[in-house]
Amino acid sequence: MNLKQTNLETMFNPKIVAVIGASDNPAKLGFHVMKSLINGGFTGKIIPLNPGSPEIWGLKAYPSLNDYADSIDLAIVVVPAKFVPGVFTECVEKNVKGIVLITAGFKEIDDPAGAQLHKKIADIINLAGIPVIGPNTFGMINFHANLNASFTPEFSLLKKGKIALVSQSGGISHLLGFLAMRADAMFSKIIGLGNRLNVDFTEIIDYLMEDSDTNVIMLYMEGIDNPMRFIEAVKKHRNKKPVIIYKTGSSKKSDQASKSHTGSMAGRHEIYEGAFNQAGILVLDSAESLLDTAKAFASSEIPEGPGVAVLSGQAGPGLAACDVCEACGLKIVSFEQRTQQSINENLPPLALRTNPVDMGPAWYNPSAQSAIIRAVMNDSNVNAILLLIMFASANANLIRELSQFLIEFKQSKPIISCILAPPGVWDDDIRHLEESVVLVNYPTPEQAARAMAALWEFRKIKRRNSF
Amino acid sequence: MNLKQTNLETMFNPKIVAVIGASDNPAKLGFHVMKSLINGGFTGKIIPLNPGSPEIWGLKAYPSLNDYADSIDLAIVVVPAKFVPGVFTECVEKNVKGIVLITAGFKEIDDPAGAQLHKKIADIINLAGIPVIGPNTFGMINFHANLNASFTPEFSLLKKGKIALVSQSGGISHLLGFLAMRADAMFSKIIGLGNRLNVDFTEIIDYLMEDSDTNVIMLYMEGIDNPMRFIEAVKKHRNKKPVIIYKTGSSKKSDQASKSHTGSMAGRHEIYEGAFNQAGILVLDSAESLLDTAKAFASSEIPEGPGVAVLSGQAGPGLAACDVCEACGLKIVSFEQRTQQSINENLPPLALRTNPVDMGPAWYNPSAQSAIIRAVMNDSNVNAILLLIMFASANANLIRELSQFLIEFKQSKPIISCILAPPGVWDDDIRHLEESVVLVNYPTPEQAARAMAALWEFRKIKRRNSF
Repeated sequence: MNLKQTNLETMFNPKIVAVIGASDNPAKLGFHVMKSLINGGFTGKIIPLNPGSPEIWGLKAYPSLNDYADSIDLAIVVVPAKFVPGVFTECVEKNVKGIVLITAGFKEIDDPAGAQLHKKIADIINLAGIPVIGPNTFGMINFHANLNASFTPEFSLLKKGKIALVSQSGGISHLLGFLAMRADAMFSKIIGLGNRLNVDFTEIIDYLMEDSDTNVIMLYMEGIDNPMRFIEAVKKHRNKKPVIIYKTGSSKKSDQASKSHTGSMAGRHEIYEGAFNQAGILVLDSAESLLDTAKAFASSEIPEGPGVAVLSGQAGPGLAACDVCEACGLKIVSFEQRTQQSINENLPPLALRTNPVDMGPAWYNPSAQSAIIRAVMNDSNVNAILLLIMFASANANLIRELSQFLIEFKQSKPIISCILAPPGVWDDDIRHLEESVVLVNYPTPEQAARAMAALWEFRKIKRRNSF
Repeated sequence: MNLKQTNLETMFNPKIVAVIGASDNPAKLGFHVMKSLINGGFTGKIIPLNPGSPEIWGLKAYPSLNDYADSIDLAIVVVPAKFVPGVFTECVEKNVKGIVLITAGFKEIDDPAGAQLHKKIADIINLAGIPVIGPNTFGMINFHANLNASFTPEFSLLKKGKIALVSQSGGISHLLGFLAMRADAMFSKIIGLGNRLNVDFTEIIDYLMEDSDTNVIMLYMEGIDNPMRFIEAVKKHRNKKPVIIYKTGSSKKSDQASKSHTGSMAGRHEIYEGAFNQAGILVLDSAESLLDTAKAFASSEIPEGPGVAVLSGQAGPGLAACDVCEACGLKIVSFEQRTQQSINENLPPLALRTNPVDMGPAWYNPSAQSAIIRAVMNDSNVNAILLLIMFASANANLIRELSQFLIEFKQSKPIISCILAPPGVWDDDIRHLEESVVLVNYPTPEQAARAMAALWEFRKIKRRNSF
């Protein structure tokens, strides 16, 4: 590990955090950063810095870094841009291990003075090997350290998990965070790269590949200066963990806008996509599918093959799932004879006893349910199960009976589900199933099928690269 | 209007409803149908029929239709299949106006006896011109009549609105209903066609095109016997109202399964799609996008042209929206000079002052907000606005200030939005904006942009057909 990587590890797991520009005024970002740290449950020391106040958020405040005796692991900087060179000089003198630079007004602004200032602070900090997340970032969160080093206290509403989000856009980070609160997706880290003074996708990939809290790396990208350096960095890790990406800029307008917004080349979208594919990075086409895919990788095993069994309480959702599966390279397999026999014994002679299976009648019969699921799970043609259940008024207890079986059964193959009910009705039961790592749930059969397809895609990538 | 259409009107707006097979036993569908009618707030008369009980759900019950003196507008039938011919004969004698036949076990089962029974009951009822919704349906709901004639009382949790859903799958109907509860999509009617004894998509299209409670017709289809009859029925109405469709069966497996499930030909998916396009039916590719599109048509004006202004608090969501817009035939237009001037006056010299506009700084300044929105709304290059706002802790009041302006402003061009916050934070404000018909909101910028594209698509269809 080089110095920057060692320092990244320290700044993500700091003991002492300084907030340079801390404030008691809710109109200031320095207020919200303090709120994030304190309400986020950070258990280390928080040192507010502000020359104008002896106390901030009930904590003793210091005029400057030099006035504080102990060492600082992480400095979060929210002062105006013109003060940043001075603050960075102090950070170097103090031997701060890492910086989150929330302040904007560097190379992303139209004025060439912004670019000059950007270069100036880079020159100060780079010599010292201090990693800087930002400028122009909302910050970063390390959920496993209860560290919310961002100006958005609400990120702490998210649950601890295995997904790391690395994003070039604060807007998309917040979007994904708020969607994840609804989807029960759980995070290890959220990192807003901002304008990447010296911490770019490349450095973060290197760090997260070694991060034991993270098992899937989810990227949102607009454009970077040196795509090939990034691609090589990903390749080096040989798909040790899934890397999934959503990149905007496919349209002319967004490409231009991205160029001015990030201060770097967005460049030809197709070239990026080709390079991503070559490096085994899964490319998604929307914020929703990015999050859906991350959630699957965070909590599911990867299927050994493309064979899917679709078990659905009703035909319609089963057909919808089949369509997506076949379009995405999964196979709706024929069952082995003994499996088919078990299904025939446990279902009345309705039409859909082959794959997809119409489980409707079995949902009213716990022993039929478990017999069929057990048989299908043991079928060597089947690598994974799509389980689709719509709430029915006459069958409100189904989910509880099924949960008990599935949690005890400890299945060996991935189950991706679409279990849906009116809001509030089955939410706790579904959460319980997800927390028991029995299945990963989605609100529609199509999303469930696409998530399954992404898992299988990653298996193929791994195999291609295991030479 | 022919007899069947007149009878459809009566059965959707009945004064007296009989439940044939009503029950006090929660294990029976007849129990849930009673619950739906009563809890759904039906204000007409409910007549439970069951030879075994003098009283059901606290209401006087009758052994058979003949024992009840008054006339019956709608009969909901939940008795076993073998009793249905007898019940239908009574319905004819009683001059019942319409039937919802929930009972299954007709041509959808493997046994040829099912198909024979299907033909037998069709022969009894068709001569009398009585429309039958079903068999093998969950039922139908007319929200504007507080009539929940289904075995799912929870459908009554949905709000009254302008979307009519006609579906060949109970599973997909429940899926869409449960999704709609979360998305605040509002319905006029939900109709489960089941195995279409004599009421098929064609009859329902004719009925809904004249239904003043409905302004968008949303279809889920697996396969029908006579696609050309359906296409001609749609064409006849010359796109008076938008018809949108999601059809499964694009894969080999789902096509086969559909054939056995619905008892009819699913047939070549591409041929269907071509015919749908030709008839001006918008084809969607998932349950989610079907509902998203319906929601847009239910509450938004149709843009006069493809010119979109993207107003976003952050660059990322704006870029995501631009990508989808350009891919779907919308145009991210250049503003007129006076519009651009107003934006320049109201935003600091950041990079994104052209389209997409980075509204970040304006979100902290109500007068800048309103000046920019007003200028953009008056720009003759702009036909519609995409408004993208992510919650920020420092700016929690934004939505309230903006709402006040938008509701007073009474804009003339459609606004589709993605306004998103942690759950519970802005939900009421967003609902208020939607109920004030100021905008239609989606959880992601891509969904918002796709909904806008569907609106524009329908404008083109209308123009193409206004010869």
